[in-house]
Amino acid sequence: MTGPIPQPQPASGVSRRGLLGVSAGAAAAGVAVGFGGGYAAHAAAAPAAEAAPATAPASLDAPIPFRGPHQAGIVTPAQDRVHFVALDVVTKDRALLVDLLKRWTRAAERMTVGAEAAPGGVVGGGPYGVPQDTGEAYGLPASGLTVTIGFGPSLFDDRFGLSARRPAALQDLPAFRGDDLDPARSGGDLCIQACANDPQVAVHAVRNLVRLGFGVVSVRWSQLGFGRTSSTSTTQTTARNLFGFKDGTNNLKAEDPAAIDEHVWVAPADVPGAAAWMSGGSYLVARRIRMHIEVWDRTNLQDQQDTIGRTKAVGAPLGQEKEFDEPDFALKGADNQPAIPVDAHIRLAHSSNLGGIKILRRGYNFTDGTDGVGHLDAGLFFIAFVRDPGKQFVPMQQALAAKDVLNEYIEHNGSALFACPPGVAEGGYWGDALFA
Amino acid sequence: MTGPIPQPQPASGVSRRGLLGVSAGAAAAGVAVGFGGGYAAHAAAAPAAEAAPATAPASLDAPIPFRGPHQAGIVTPAQDRVHFVALDVVTKDRALLVDLLKRWTRAAERMTVGAEAAPGGVVGGGPYGVPQDTGEAYGLPASGLTVTIGFGPSLFDDRFGLSARRPAALQDLPAFRGDDLDPARSGGDLCIQACANDPQVAVHAVRNLVRLGFGVVSVRWSQLGFGRTSSTSTTQTTARNLFGFKDGTNNLKAEDPAAIDEHVWVAPADVPGAAAWMSGGSYLVARRIRMHIEVWDRTNLQDQQDTIGRTKAVGAPLGQEKEFDEPDFALKGADNQPAIPVDAHIRLAHSSNLGGIKILRRGYNFTDGTDGVGHLDAGLFFIAFVRDPGKQFVPMQQALAAKDVLNEYIEHNGSALFACPPGVAEGGYWGDALFA
Repeated sequence: MTGPIPQPQPASGVSRRGLLGVSAGAAAAGVAVGFGGGYAAHAAAAPAAEAAPATAPASLDAPIPFRGPHQAGIVTPAQDRVHFVALDVVTKDRALLVDLLKRWTRAAERMTVGAEAAPGGVVGGGPYGVPQDTGEAYGLPASGLTVTIGFGPSLFDDRFGLSARRPAALQDLPAFRGDDLDPARSGGDLCIQACANDPQVAVHAVRNLVRLGFGVVSVRWSQLGFGRTSSTSTTQTTARNLFGFKDGTNNLKAEDPAAIDEHVWVAPADVPGAAAWMSGGSYLVARRIRMHIEVWDRTNLQDQQDTIGRTKAVGAPLGQEKEFDEPDFALKGADNQPAIPVDAHIRLAHSSNLGGIKILRRGYNFTDGTDGVGHLDAGLFFIAFVRDPGKQFVPMQQALAAKDVLNEYIEHNGSALFACPPGVAEGGYWGDALFA
Repeated sequence: MTGPIPQPQPASGVSRRGLLGVSAGAAAAGVAVGFGGGYAAHAAAAPAAEAAPATAPASLDAPIPFRGPHQAGIVTPAQDRVHFVALDVVTKDRALLVDLLKRWTRAAERMTVGAEAAPGGVVGGGPYGVPQDTGEAYGLPASGLTVTIGFGPSLFDDRFGLSARRPAALQDLPAFRGDDLDPARSGGDLCIQACANDPQVAVHAVRNLVRLGFGVVSVRWSQLGFGRTSSTSTTQTTARNLFGFKDGTNNLKAEDPAAIDEHVWVAPADVPGAAAWMSGGSYLVARRIRMHIEVWDRTNLQDQQDTIGRTKAVGAPLGQEKEFDEPDFALKGADNQPAIPVDAHIRLAHSSNLGGIKILRRGYNFTDGTDGVGHLDAGLFFIAFVRDPGKQFVPMQQALAAKDVLNEYIEHNGSALFACPPGVAEGGYWGDALFA
């Protein structure tokens, strides 16, 4: 986080019920007592508040500020759950799309403070009105919800007059060796990443935004994730992936704003001319990585550790002692071979072996039922934020795809890239500079 | 819960790391310091401890006792997440199946106290041993994990000599009007229900048990759920389902042991002769109920409330004020029509309209990606525990399938029934009385 983020709402309460001030009687009678009317009124009513820290809020229930120079949900300390959805725009009417982005902004901002998606909420406009919020998160706290939007390369075709505004870095990802991509799990005109510490809150956010988009967008694919595998703050411990290893120890951290500026945020010089709307944004790379856990679980400890390059129990680089010891790639073992093998994952992915490349990882574990042949369909829903995918993710993934011994146990079956615009200023909406 | 449940482990700690006493150095060197060896040793080492209350533990992280007269995970206050798996037995060797049940019991008991699935844990038997635990929950607390096992009707065919021991009540469920069952989401020789307050802990438990079953069982289907929709204890608030309504207000509660005895636990007289092994057990009905949330979300508040029979905001029976008001089905509205419509869900499902039938609901919400045509594949993973499915679930579901106006918005696409044996006594294993 490079600067203070204004807080959109007075933190007078974090529960949808509390914020709306709906008494039992009023609600039962179908009377809504919302805290704001239309978009302009709501935005105007939001006072510029104290600077909020980039690090974890006091409680997992507390709200995360929605507005600021950058979108929330990128360097925000990773919440425990994600519901990610990719959508296709089903209209060619640019005005409808812009209107949706305004309505989405309004709804997302409300939901991130623990309010319902729209004034009127679950009780709608009286008994014969359709409820303006689907209701399953009613009464739940804000739960650290962040909602992050992105625009896919396909949005910049000739449908909406955006082709001249496409940033040079927003190109379809190249094919990587070993890719086994399912079109039904790849691509999309738009994405929404909803992260929260309660899955019901994340699902509620996506569902209500999808609902608002009826007739304008259609769900292309979605993914639920749990057990964040990447800490994005020094205040968090490193979680484990489904191979049982600590993952992302060397991840970029919110507390190092210089590194975040260098590797995550798009700088003005990166996007000259018509692409300037993307300044302050970031590119989101999503990869659904199926893990063949049944095979992995039959390999011995040494093989597993050699594959990753860290010890399983502690997460220390091989030959070293502690998780946060800087990996020593020159270190030799008793057999005079490198302690961290030449094809180990952390060696190939380390910035010192990639010309200084770093990425902000923000992935989640998933388990999606079974694969139909007796195995769990489980893995890592990889999400990374980068300043330039062509200079960061692409060369990194090319190196990993070519040599990483981990490839024996994984399979990339979904892929997408999105340009996440900068944060929303007071009075603005998601992507306003793009559509201005 | 009808009586005290002995606590299997001294509550000296709840973290896998703490329980195993693995120091960073020892773990890095591949040295395991487990807290118990083989099955017998472990069981013998477990002291009979103080009576544990049936209500919620002090912390969501704390362990739930594994052994007792009934299996945990039935009247245990519903945890926030479930990973449910149905399995088929792929061997015809009864001894292998019995051996697996013993190994499963040992592993499940360890995991419920926050330990790894087996002694040796993530560091295995030295560097060239295969880790005995997959590791993704290493360092996480017990998280209220319960693991509950069930036996499907198909287990009682001629493969294992069990056909004479099949309880009369364990019959395949009949077809219900409107069923659209997918065989790939239905049935199974065995089931494992793992509930926890952290999904990573529930997934870890299922995965490690599946792994232990390699060569003996194969995954048939699995389902991840979140946001428990049924409270099973008066200490819990009523959660909301994905229609945004409070669900299961009138559920049976652990604090009413007489009702639990009457409606949930199989009594000795229910299972005479060769089926006596099931005394103290319960039948688990699983139904995957897809909810057509997009359609629901376009209906007005009055329609939604008339469909359920409760107000959306508060959850009060229509015409009444508070959630826990006893529904008054005779009450008329201003139009002289019943306040709770004649085809409302709560009217049809209420015990007073079903000859006194009650069931213990323990379901979860789910969101499984998309349905391929632009909608979220979301709904309710219904789980109920009953003393006799033919006398409770079947007539209830027949009544609902015939008349419930809710059917317009839902679709049952998965179904299974399992006989959950009674709890495991000291020195015993899951299903020991069945295989004795």
